[in-house]
Amino acid sequence: MRSADQLREVVIQRGYLENHPASVLYRSGRTVVLCTASVEASVPPWLVGKGKGWVTAEYNMLPGSTSPRKRRDRGGKIDGRTTEIQRLIGRSLRSIVDLKQLGEQMITVDCDVLQADGGTRTASITGGFIALAEAVKQIAPDSSIGSGPLIDSVAAISVGLIGDEVRLDLDYELDAAADVDMNVVMTGKGRFVEIQGTGEEATFDDEQLTQMLGLARKGIAELTDLQVNQR
Amino acid sequence: MRSADQLREVVIQRGYLENHPASVLYRSGRTVVLCTASVEASVPPWLVGKGKGWVTAEYNMLPGSTSPRKRRDRGGKIDGRTTEIQRLIGRSLRSIVDLKQLGEQMITVDCDVLQADGGTRTASITGGFIALAEAVKQIAPDSSIGSGPLIDSVAAISVGLIGDEVRLDLDYELDAAADVDMNVVMTGKGRFVEIQGTGEEATFDDEQLTQMLGLARKGIAELTDLQVNQR
Amino acid sequence: MRSADQLREVVIQRGYLENHPASVLYRSGRTVVLCTASVEASVPPWLVGKGKGWVTAEYNMLPGSTSPRKRRDRGGKIDGRTTEIQRLIGRSLRSIVDLKQLGEQMITVDCDVLQADGGTRTASITGGFIALAEAVKQIAPDSSIGSGPLIDSVAAISVGLIGDEVRLDLDYELDAAADVDMNVVMTGKGRFVEIQGTGEEATFDDEQLTQMLGLARKGIAELTDLQVNQR
Amino acid sequence: MRSADQLREVVIQRGYLENHPASVLYRSGRTVVLCTASVEASVPPWLVGKGKGWVTAEYNMLPGSTSPRKRRDRGGKIDGRTTEIQRLIGRSLRSIVDLKQLGEQMITVDCDVLQADGGTRTASITGGFIALAEAVKQIAPDSSIGSGPLIDSVAAISVGLIGDEVRLDLDYELDAAADVDMNVVMTGKGRFVEIQGTGEEATFDDEQLTQMLGLARKGIAELTDLQVNQR
Amino acid sequence: MRSADQLREVVIQRGYLENHPASVLYRSGRTVVLCTASVEASVPPWLVGKGKGWVTAEYNMLPGSTSPRKRRDRGGKIDGRTTEIQRLIGRSLRSIVDLKQLGEQMITVDCDVLQADGGTRTASITGGFIALAEAVKQIAPDSSIGSGPLIDSVAAISVGLIGDEVRLDLDYELDAAADVDMNVVMTGKGRFVEIQGTGEEATFDDEQLTQMLGLARKGIAELTDLQVNQR
Amino acid sequence: MRSADQLREVVIQRGYLENHPASVLYRSGRTVVLCTASVEASVPPWLVGKGKGWVTAEYNMLPGSTSPRKRRDRGGKIDGRTTEIQRLIGRSLRSIVDLKQLGEQMITVDCDVLQADGGTRTASITGGFIALAEAVKQIAPDSSIGSGPLIDSVAAISVGLIGDEVRLDLDYELDAAADVDMNVVMTGKGRFVEIQGTGEEATFDDEQLTQMLGLARKGIAELTDLQVNQR
Repeated sequence: MRSADQLREVVIQRGYLENHPASVLYRSGRTVVLCTASVEASVPPWLVGKGKGWVTAEYNMLPGSTSPRKRRDRGGKIDGRTTEIQRLIGRSLRSIVDLKQLGEQMITVDCDVLQADGGTRTASITGGFIALAEAVKQIAPDSSIGSGPLIDSVAAISVGLIGDEVRLDLDYELDAAADVDMNVVMTGKGRFVEIQGTGEEATFDDEQLTQMLGLARKGIAELTDLQVNQR
Repeated sequence: MRSADQLREVVIQRGYLENHPASVLYRSGRTVVLCTASVEASVPPWLVGKGKGWVTAEYNMLPGSTSPRKRRDRGGKIDGRTTEIQRLIGRSLRSIVDLKQLGEQMITVDCDVLQADGGTRTASITGGFIALAEAVKQIAPDSSIGSGPLIDSVAAISVGLIGDEVRLDLDYELDAAADVDMNVVMTGKGRFVEIQGTGEEATFDDEQLTQMLGLARKGIAELTDLQVNQR
Repeated sequence: MRSADQLREVVIQRGYLENHPASVLYRSGRTVVLCTASVEASVPPWLVGKGKGWVTAEYNMLPGSTSPRKRRDRGGKIDGRTTEIQRLIGRSLRSIVDLKQLGEQMITVDCDVLQADGGTRTASITGGFIALAEAVKQIAPDSSIGSGPLIDSVAAISVGLIGDEVRLDLDYELDAAADVDMNVVMTGKGRFVEIQGTGEEATFDDEQLTQMLGLARKGIAELTDLQVNQR
Repeated sequence: MRSADQLREVVIQRGYLENHPASVLYRSGRTVVLCTASVEASVPPWLVGKGKGWVTAEYNMLPGSTSPRKRRDRGGKIDGRTTEIQRLIGRSLRSIVDLKQLGEQMITVDCDVLQADGGTRTASITGGFIALAEAVKQIAPDSSIGSGPLIDSVAAISVGLIGDEVRLDLDYELDAAADVDMNVVMTGKGRFVEIQGTGEEATFDDEQLTQMLGLARKGIAELTDLQVNQR
Repeated sequence: MRSADQLREVVIQRGYLENHPASVLYRSGRTVVLCTASVEASVPPWLVGKGKGWVTAEYNMLPGSTSPRKRRDRGGKIDGRTTEIQRLIGRSLRSIVDLKQLGEQMITVDCDVLQADGGTRTASITGGFIALAEAVKQIAPDSSIGSGPLIDSVAAISVGLIGDEVRLDLDYELDAAADVDMNVVMTGKGRFVEIQGTGEEATFDDEQLTQMLGLARKGIAELTDLQVNQR
Repeated sequence: MRSADQLREVVIQRGYLENHPASVLYRSGRTVVLCTASVEASVPPWLVGKGKGWVTAEYNMLPGSTSPRKRRDRGGKIDGRTTEIQRLIGRSLRSIVDLKQLGEQMITVDCDVLQADGGTRTASITGGFIALAEAVKQIAPDSSIGSGPLIDSVAAISVGLIGDEVRLDLDYELDAAADVDMNVVMTGKGRFVEIQGTGEEATFDDEQLTQMLGLARKGIAELTDLQVNQR
């Protein structure tokens, strides 16, 4: 059994699709996300002529990723949860990109969940960064993190409060049991990008907040190592 | 000029519409939100027969609330920002409601922004709670906060980082200048309900986080006093 | 009690929103409409390059304006009644505007009903004219009615047939009792702009028509006086 | 050339579709409308269990009915003009139906314009009544107008003001030239059902109104004769 | 009674609408389709500047064409069957058009089914070709089939398997009884354009396929004669 | 290089997702489709109470499956090609299911294309059958093909005409070069389920048809062997 401060096993398959170098199959336990980063030579209307690029993300769960089957978002209405998640992924990825160095190009990072077992949004950010870095490598082959369009790396993890215990990396079962659920997005250098802590039918105090943030910091340091050093 | 730890002036008009007792016009500086809480004797399908009620919220900006004019959300697609905000308002309000004591009833809190000058989501939560409390009073006249469907009160405020300075209650001008923007939702008893901190093109460290949270706590205590004690 | 030929009390708050000079809160009894007129420096595609401007209107009832709560028009389908009303408001306002003198600008008059007690479409026209006139004053400060983009003023009122009695200005209760319902739009100079008389489950004869039109003329003269002379 | 008080030639083909007895091809000059009245053994939700029926109408212009080709209303948004027209047709037909005698049945009158040359809404009402009467005959074979579900007949015609001249039955060319356009719906017994007079960029006075209504009355009497007596 | 290899009676009314020369009322037994071909002086975005034209088709069943009444496709979702049929009609018509000779023009062939008794898609192709040929004649008066934009003619028919019997031209009753249903589109010169054979709850073998194709060839030869020679 | 009558290499991964036994990753060359078959204990409205089950399919291409990136079908409009393909997959799968033996259950087969290199619809049918068979095994463990809900197996392949050469199994490059494209769906016992042959800017004759069908039969026999015998 996994201890309270232990991540699920992470498996990263870079270049998963032969035709698409910036494609990554990211597994965190039984959560499986296919991340692909596609480059277009145009930017959204509000950026035209500003000499800057854009990074955006789309998030989607395949119907077979859950049981019972999840209905597709085809009726013209994307559900609120999906909208929130893909906005979070987009903001997180943009936080470590120098959009000026990107030039007038747009990168769309698609995160399609093949199997969902909790933590799909944090897996999408962590895996999405890897796909993004591959795409940047295609268009700026000599760049590296800190020198070129990528300022830093970024990863994300969830922490939670189950009764009095603080837990790292909630899978579906832990998430269902949690009173408070917090997603933390942090750069490789250890600075916060985003904190989203929610207690729908519970609340939390300062000390619990401090413990959760500490555990998240530890998890993200491990993920950063997998993203950046282990190839 | 307002100091860094000072709230904008708040003006609360309870019973703003003659036909609707649970209607509140909430002003925070030049931000003006009309909050109405409507009770229906039915619950969403997934709650039928569970002996519980539901509280939900809808958020909307009127076209004349901004300059230039904001287009209406009529094309069948609610924009992502609106979706996120109304989900946040709903979660925040539910955090202080005992849904079992509510019984099989649904309360919808509508937050329509008549004039927007920053902080519309936090104004919607703070004003929305007042409308909600009025609606609860209609259906449970003998209840009070802590005894009856309302467990606690709830309010929200924004804090931000502008350069090195931490600021309370960002109006539009401050918000545009802020590197980091954080919305904090807290109960009257001082427990966190929700923390959402974002640095789209910036990041922040532990100490800055601590300062922002402290300032938010101070502001929320003042708002709670206006909500609960001053009638 | 109001007599058969008496208007409800009208209260007009000009400049209701600090940030928006062309904003008017118009009250007719318990019917409350917020009218704002916003100017854009572009015209719809079919008018581009024709040297003419455009005036259009949008009408909306806030959810808390009725009991039970009115659902928002968000599913992509605006209901037929809303469409008809906003087309009527737009035509009525355009009837007294010299679109050539306006130049290639578009004015959108938004009529958001905060509280509905019958007569919301006629209140929207009467209040919408006041907001429109304020907006015109911003862009043509030296103009006045009859000299500049505004050719005349315009106002509207309802009349109805309840049994054998002809009534002026139907509130919700009278409207529900009426066999025939007629909306009349007229300029300040007393010329007809629009007549819409309907007897869904009843019909009416020539003499009843004459009586209804006479009463409408009297009511509109009083409204014109409030719009134009009383500031 | 047609005189100012003369109708266009009307040709009525009853039973136009072999499989559908209540189908009528109605021609007024070059305006051609196919009207079919379909009966369903159920009523809209708000009428269930009230012992009453319902009559509704749908209006549509085929793409080839105009030049240039009219785009279909398929994008999920019915245009405002279509909505207004089909609501008018529905109200007009219901004005002469005793919904209680209809019992819990719904009749939908579809008016599909095959060729448009002005006056399609009034042709739809006049032709739609004939289709409706055929459908009523199917379900109440022994009834007649005045005895059974049909209380009276109903027909409609347009009148207009072109310069100083009052004209009956505006075709496309006359309509484009008209300053004021008025549609009048009247029963066979000569009572008004609906008056809709509009002067988008013009206005009209009492005397002109009286002349237009007189001419409309004359035209409707002729149409009633064609609907009811000439088979 | 019709024999197994006999077509239903076909009646073709060219120039059915006075205002629209390329309009054809096509009857095959009780199936009635109004086909109109409209020319626009522009092409879809992906063809701009390529010196080629485009031919497309839209298919629609009027509500009164079936019993019970068919609901209109207005909710923003065109049903799958409609989509398939109009794509088939478009491909079939394009197969005999030299798009380069058409130049940068688009022809839209609208096929509106007034009465449906089986075989509406094949009637739409066969009748749609006649309307298309009329439209081509307007824009290229000196052309003929084989010399000008039209390379060949095209027609379509259905064949089916009912038990062991192969039948030509399935009306509604035969279609409901058929185990296998096949639509064949063929040019006047006898070359296949499209074969769509389907056995939803049945399957078929090589010999049955051969018989069906032979019968289709015979039927199409007869239709070609009506399209091209008989005027 | 592949010869004209040779299939691409097929790789089948059964049970690809740990949480979903009826999940299959089907590869045909560089075309990769994830097929999952989900069982629900309810049927569509029109089948309720008829003692029969239903099988349906949904088809989707992930954005990263093509270059340039394919936009998601989220705007409320599924494109025509997608609609056609998923209807074809559904019909093909139903052709070999005894819906009565299935009982009142619905199986949805989702075919999500991870990488597209031509032939995605035929891969979806062939792979979809394997997922379907796994799902049937879950609900009818003792059944086998021919005894239980599955009457037969089903597979599909494309054939085409490139110049004068008949080719089996078109990848993207061959498909782009083909004059005629034909998809053939056939059962394991060698009976036709569906033939769809299309020559958008070309046509074909009887002999070419015979050659294409022969080649398809050969390919399907090989696929059937992989589906059924090789585990």
